[in-house]
Amino acid sequence: VDKTSCPATKPKMLNVHLVPHTHDDVGWLKTVDQYYYGGRNDIQHAGVQYILDSVVAALQKDPARRFIYVETAFFYRWWKQQNPSTRRVVTQLVEQGRLEFINGGWCMSDEATTHYSAVIDQMTLGLRFLNDTFGECGRPRVAWHIDPFGHAREHASLFAQMGFDGFFFGRLDYQDKARRMKAREMEMVWRASQSLKPPAADLFTGVLPNGYNPPPGFCWDQSCSDAPVQDDPDLDDYNVDMLVATFLNIASAQAQVYKTNHIVMTMGSDFQYENANLWYKNMDKLIRYVNAQQANGSVVNVLYSTPSCYLQELHLANLTWPLKTDDFFPYADDAHDFWTGYFTSRPALKRYERLSNSLLQTCNQLEVLGGAKSRSGPFGEGHSDTMKRAMAVAQHHDAVSGTERQHVAYDYAKRLATGWAHCQVLVRNSLAVLSGSDVPRVFCENLNISVCPLTEGSKKFSMNVYNPLARVVTWSVRLPVNGTSYSVTDSNGKEMDSQVSVCVDRGYAKYELVFEVQAPPMGYTTYSVTLLKAHPARAPTTPKPVYFVCVVEGSSFIAKCPLCGRYNASGGDAESRQASGAYIFRPNSSTPISINQNPNISTLQEVRQQFSPWVSQVVRLYNGSRELELEWTVGPVPVADGLGKEVITRLDSNISSAGYFYTDSNGREVMERRKDYRPTWDLKQTEPIAGNYYPINSRAFIKDGRNQMTVVTDRSQGVSSIYNGSLEIMLHRRLLHDDVRGVEEPLSEPGEFADGLVVRGRLLVMLTPPETAADMHRPLAQGMVLQPMLSFQEGGSSRLSQFSGLQAALPPAVHLLTVSQWSNDSVLLRLEHQYESSESKTYSLPVTVNLQKLFSTLEIVGVSEMSLGANQWKEDMKRLQWKPSTGTNTHAARQTAAFHRPCTFCILNVFFWGGGGLSSR
Amino acid sequence: VDKTSCPATKPKMLNVHLVPHTHDDVGWLKTVDQYYYGGRNDIQHAGVQYILDSVVAALQKDPARRFIYVETAFFYRWWKQQNPSTRRVVTQLVEQGRLEFINGGWCMSDEATTHYSAVIDQMTLGLRFLNDTFGECGRPRVAWHIDPFGHAREHASLFAQMGFDGFFFGRLDYQDKARRMKAREMEMVWRASQSLKPPAADLFTGVLPNGYNPPPGFCWDQSCSDAPVQDDPDLDDYNVDMLVATFLNIASAQAQVYKTNHIVMTMGSDFQYENANLWYKNMDKLIRYVNAQQANGSVVNVLYSTPSCYLQELHLANLTWPLKTDDFFPYADDAHDFWTGYFTSRPALKRYERLSNSLLQTCNQLEVLGGAKSRSGPFGEGHSDTMKRAMAVAQHHDAVSGTERQHVAYDYAKRLATGWAHCQVLVRNSLAVLSGSDVPRVFCENLNISVCPLTEGSKKFSMNVYNPLARVVTWSVRLPVNGTSYSVTDSNGKEMDSQVSVCVDRGYAKYELVFEVQAPPMGYTTYSVTLLKAHPARAPTTPKPVYFVCVVEGSSFIAKCPLCGRYNASGGDAESRQASGAYIFRPNSSTPISINQNPNISTLQEVRQQFSPWVSQVVRLYNGSRELELEWTVGPVPVADGLGKEVITRLDSNISSAGYFYTDSNGREVMERRKDYRPTWDLKQTEPIAGNYYPINSRAFIKDGRNQMTVVTDRSQGVSSIYNGSLEIMLHRRLLHDDVRGVEEPLSEPGEFADGLVVRGRLLVMLTPPETAADMHRPLAQGMVLQPMLSFQEGGSSRLSQFSGLQAALPPAVHLLTVSQWSNDSVLLRLEHQYESSESKTYSLPVTVNLQKLFSTLEIVGVSEMSLGANQWKEDMKRLQWKPSTGTNTHAARQTAAFHRPCTFCILNVFFWGGGGLSSR
Repeated sequence: VDKTSCPATKPKMLNVHLVPHTHDDVGWLKTVDQYYYGGRNDIQHAGVQYILDSVVAALQKDPARRFIYVETAFFYRWWKQQNPSTRRVVTQLVEQGRLEFINGGWCMSDEATTHYSAVIDQMTLGLRFLNDTFGECGRPRVAWHIDPFGHAREHASLFAQMGFDGFFFGRLDYQDKARRMKAREMEMVWRASQSLKPPAADLFTGVLPNGYNPPPGFCWDQSCSDAPVQDDPDLDDYNVDMLVATFLNIASAQAQVYKTNHIVMTMGSDFQYENANLWYKNMDKLIRYVNAQQANGSVVNVLYSTPSCYLQELHLANLTWPLKTDDFFPYADDAHDFWTGYFTSRPALKRYERLSNSLLQTCNQLEVLGGAKSRSGPFGEGHSDTMKRAMAVAQHHDAVSGTERQHVAYDYAKRLATGWAHCQVLVRNSLAVLSGSDVPRVFCENLNISVCPLTEGSKKFSMNVYNPLARVVTWSVRLPVNGTSYSVTDSNGKEMDSQVSVCVDRGYAKYELVFEVQAPPMGYTTYSVTLLKAHPARAPTTPKPVYFVCVVEGSSFIAKCPLCGRYNASGGDAESRQASGAYIFRPNSSTPISINQNPNISTLQEVRQQFSPWVSQVVRLYNGSRELELEWTVGPVPVADGLGKEVITRLDSNISSAGYFYTDSNGREVMERRKDYRPTWDLKQTEPIAGNYYPINSRAFIKDGRNQMTVVTDRSQGVSSIYNGSLEIMLHRRLLHDDVRGVEEPLSEPGEFADGLVVRGRLLVMLTPPETAADMHRPLAQGMVLQPMLSFQEGGSSRLSQFSGLQAALPPAVHLLTVSQWSNDSVLLRLEHQYESSESKTYSLPVTVNLQKLFSTLEIVGVSEMSLGANQWKEDMKRLQWKPSTGTNTHAARQTAAFHRPCTFCILNVFFWGGGGLSSR
Repeated sequence: VDKTSCPATKPKMLNVHLVPHTHDDVGWLKTVDQYYYGGRNDIQHAGVQYILDSVVAALQKDPARRFIYVETAFFYRWWKQQNPSTRRVVTQLVEQGRLEFINGGWCMSDEATTHYSAVIDQMTLGLRFLNDTFGECGRPRVAWHIDPFGHAREHASLFAQMGFDGFFFGRLDYQDKARRMKAREMEMVWRASQSLKPPAADLFTGVLPNGYNPPPGFCWDQSCSDAPVQDDPDLDDYNVDMLVATFLNIASAQAQVYKTNHIVMTMGSDFQYENANLWYKNMDKLIRYVNAQQANGSVVNVLYSTPSCYLQELHLANLTWPLKTDDFFPYADDAHDFWTGYFTSRPALKRYERLSNSLLQTCNQLEVLGGAKSRSGPFGEGHSDTMKRAMAVAQHHDAVSGTERQHVAYDYAKRLATGWAHCQVLVRNSLAVLSGSDVPRVFCENLNISVCPLTEGSKKFSMNVYNPLARVVTWSVRLPVNGTSYSVTDSNGKEMDSQVSVCVDRGYAKYELVFEVQAPPMGYTTYSVTLLKAHPARAPTTPKPVYFVCVVEGSSFIAKCPLCGRYNASGGDAESRQASGAYIFRPNSSTPISINQNPNISTLQEVRQQFSPWVSQVVRLYNGSRELELEWTVGPVPVADGLGKEVITRLDSNISSAGYFYTDSNGREVMERRKDYRPTWDLKQTEPIAGNYYPINSRAFIKDGRNQMTVVTDRSQGVSSIYNGSLEIMLHRRLLHDDVRGVEEPLSEPGEFADGLVVRGRLLVMLTPPETAADMHRPLAQGMVLQPMLSFQEGGSSRLSQFSGLQAALPPAVHLLTVSQWSNDSVLLRLEHQYESSESKTYSLPVTVNLQKLFSTLEIVGVSEMSLGANQWKEDMKRLQWKPSTGTNTHAARQTAAFHRPCTFCILNVFFWGGGGLSSR
């Protein structure tokens, strides 16, 4: 918005900015398409197509009216269906600032359970659509996360790097809010990175007064029951005088907790404005009647506005604002109502989303590397668009968060599967181009449960291992087979070590073939597997010595065998009726119940702990690895005793952690946590377990002066450290009550046989000195996020059995975050410095990458640096600057880093031209 | 509609007329104003202001779209608030036939519990507004009673006389509907009068296919949950093919039960179209996709239409239609679900409505007689508009029917009270003009419970008795007093007979002063009352001999003392879960329980029967009267036993009624009824009591060759004749269950002291030969409807103590139905021939009235005859003519009766000019 499109305000009055808005969940109780069309209105009345129809019509009736729209996943669906004349009208409304896009991502992402790479992708997808459709007038200036259940600092950092001028949200801890209202600290400057030089990650942040709802009594949507403005004195229930008086009281009370003579009111809520006339007709009257009181001395001025127009007025006020450096987790809206359950809810979906991210990055890379033939090649038409959109939808705060209805969770999974199906074609085409082999290629998506028909039945097959990381990875592969002896050779024909062990998963496969693979950066290699012996004389023995790892002792360090335990879920008690549910975690006792103190332990080349029929854990320490792998399998969680259960694994050590522990923020920076403590207010702890849970997306650790125990996880989970030296991670949840936050369905995921869902996952545990921990967990966590993709071909190996898209591995500090075809002749590249400014002596240093020498097959003919969302040239990115009342004010030092300038913990975003295909080698 | 504004149809196809409509109850779960504004949406989501906003916007988007609007009470409220530009748009939509008014009364009146005079008034009020606002294009052509719970023949007759071309409704007996569907008799010609010469009261009548709802699966309102047309193949749940196929099946099945290649579908329901876009957007698509199938050989053609455009096509079909001569009562929608409870529900409201009608007619007459000063005179500004609108609202099928929520019933009563307050000022002014006395005038509205502070405390007062009938009435007046002896003199100073008896009602008054008064036609007289003796030496004796009337024996006739009994209400049983409720009557046994076989009888000048503490009855036979008065007092009905109760009074006689009995239709023609029988289908009787109940508005009788027992009632009630020679009338109901027809509130009216409501009423019972019964019950019933209005002044009598607005009483056959100021210089006059063609040897004859000699103070300078609704010159009234398949077809003989031509049982409607004030006498 430029100043001219914002409504006039009155400098000597209290200006009340009414912000008409709708909050449209990209799936929740209904699927995203059901929400779009208004299908299944029996579940929830909501139809976004009608919202946009209705708002566009209402805006045309009066140029004073304003509306903001947020979720591009919906706007995109609607725009596709509009005729040219409606499109012209909408374009004009956007150009005049009457319809303004806010936030603008494909969805409003969850902040606790999303990984930064997927968040950047989904924002990029949404912002690109707006940019392509409306140009600069469609560029959102304000980030708007009114509903997510807690706020991650990394999100704020990303928003700052995307060029947003400010950020508003609705939910924060009730104690925090009370303090902020009293102290007039509802609006602040959030310094969102410890590593980036201010104000690169500074973000003006405002807490909205009523969550995202209108003030009580002023909700005029069809879904509300507040009295309309009844202004005909001839009819009953005339209420203008009463409404005006109430509104003036509310405005005046609100002004007491904010700093300027401008206040904002969110006039809307979930799926509102399907019939915008109700809202606007009554707001028109409210504005008229309230402002008419100015003639009688009232100093309140009400106007239609938008968040960016409100923000502009705050900026003009030229005040200093409190500085915020921690984050807004965990979120509690009452003493026993901690929204810490969703950190773990639906662990299978959380894993599938993460796996899909890895597949999408691979798909994107192979689209670039394979060129045009990857989209249209021997295996048909492939593309990454569906997968991009499916992943973007999955970032929604009721998607990967696990807080949606069961049928909606299935829909998210289905979308990812469909996305992957389209990507598979692309990947097959691309690998055919790169490898020179058109032999059909099979993807075994069920390797985690030891199912792969090709490897189970084949006597000779080749396996392609694609590595999306920018450096060589070594990886242990476990393939289900039915023979007892195999020859495995690498792409150079070299025979590899391999083992066959008994497969414990039920299925067709009797055995597992295990061997280590090594794949080149942003490339692949190929292994050939040939059956030597189909039937054993006797069951295969264990060919390797047992690593008994259940107690690891170092010089000064003991880590005990991880325990599996559970909390029984509260169904509400005398103190509070709050039950554990999809959002809320509330155990009925603070002491976890050990599932079995003495699990059955069987040792192959691993330690297999069977705690109970529904909880088992395999502990593995691979050759040459310093990390310990815990593979957990939990479910079906029994609930016949009438108690929901939340299963944890607990890692105990003799580390003197003293109540401190550390968790990542969206998989990127690390936040310090402290038991029963919040950095910004004097916490009254009311839930000793749930109130100490925090989200992790990739890692958590505890440390003391000498040792650090770091856990890297394969999906987003909840974590805490309740005891000294202990880290506990919540793995799975099955509940019998709804937690009264709207889902109205207990979180009890059905499994294969009408029983509870069985979930399997991995944790990597490292024991290191604190100084070198990051050197190990950074690459390990990136390896968990971007996993090698395996594909199989019957018979022999391909012509070109090895390939790397890079001329060389990138320096260890540099992560290849994004390589994605942007247009026919341009590619979006994101290089990330992945070490925080002081976490590694070796790698927390600036590093330089020569883009010209980056790729092995792509010639770069031009480069341009972008904002993080790729919707603005970096040089045009001019954010509003804000003065924090404390902390370093580096206001003057605008960050204008050019792409070639070295930086630490930064993300370099560039378009380059000249890619788009395989150049001649 | 003229032919040009109707959509084109395809002669060789099945044309499906989609009729977009909303059904807007003029009060039900919410008050009329709450419905208008959308207040109290917590009770029910409904806001008519938005419906009209929304529909007008949607109609503008596509000239093919149509909408009908029905309830003028709402349209009037909305129109008042529109600016000139919206009014222009709406006028144009009306002129183009895109927005069409249907029915057009102030409300959609109830058909069972309304009196024809009030129905005519409410229709006139609505039609006038449309006529004044839109002229001929606003004149509704079709009557539309889609929701009333059974249909009265008199309503059809009135509609015919109002000039409607046809009539559609939704509800009829489920057995009747099944038969009609099978026989293709869903559409018919209703010959709605036994007396009027066809086709004067012939009305084409159609039963709608789905009540008034859309076919299953095609409801696209915001209040529905059917799937929208999902036509984007890129999104999930694409359903166009499935929807089109389903629609074609439905259309084809519907065509099987109707006669022409045109069928109608009502696309709407209760308070729908608040967001018209949902409906139209999906119907647009439905029409497009269904008609696109014509290219593939489909012969179904869907179009937007209106009832009158559909009717026009039926007319063009030039078929003969089955003839209907009875009515559609009682209405049952399942075997144990007879909607016969509402004939009696809320008896106090039913009485108050009837009383208000009498007051309104008096108010109207006095407005004409008093001239301009009646509206603005010594007592301030008075008017009849509020009362007219309140009475019109009270005719709604959830108002006087008693099927509204309690708070809405209070609102109807409040509106009537407010209306009367405005009328009181007018009446005071008018009587001041006519009588020459400005002394304040008091109306005692609680005389029925013996409360009137003025008469109770005054030593000398005068009483004005205004008689709205066109003939002299004699009437017994009972005034609460505290003295024991009074002198009563008439306007000529003549001393009248009077009695003082002990007052049995609790209150301030110890005694009742009883005397007979006689008032001139359409005029008043004045009585003076002076206290002679304040305190009695002893309690006043009974000055008259006792008439012991509990058994009346004639030559061949015995009528027994009326019994009071009750049915215990069913709360549902094994056979059906249906409970008795506001709509439904369902006793739990077919044998009524006698409340007391041996009531305490005390005899004053009357027989007072106390059946129980909550049921009593007073039987009076006044001097010179041939009718017996039963004053019943019922309540609070006890329900501590967990059983709802429906209280009846039963009149047993030795008349050989043989299962036949007779009930009036809306207070006008009489319908023959027969136990366990319906004239038009082979009844399977499933509820022996409730299935034999019929509504009465003014009278019921049984007869044999020699005797007739006629009961005239003071309000609408339910009646039946279960036993030979017996008539039972339901007086009051108090229930503990809701009957699941939407009210969701048991009908249990609260009384004064948080107990059940006490209700008092009167029945007049006549014993006559059948031949002369009408001569007696016709005037008696009109006297019950239009009662003398009493007003009191402290002190002496007025200067002009007697007045008649008529030069002479009208002939006995002629009823003065309406005298009402229409404009400054015109008056609406309705004269009614009130005898059916063969019910009276004396009076069922044509009669001539000379309008020039009608009024005593008004000079008529011009007269013009109107349709019954007064929205069309009679000479312009050209209705579509229809051929019944049986019965006399008098198609050629168009009724063009001029006002001066004598007729029987007709209503003459004229405007005359030159009224509007008192001319010099």
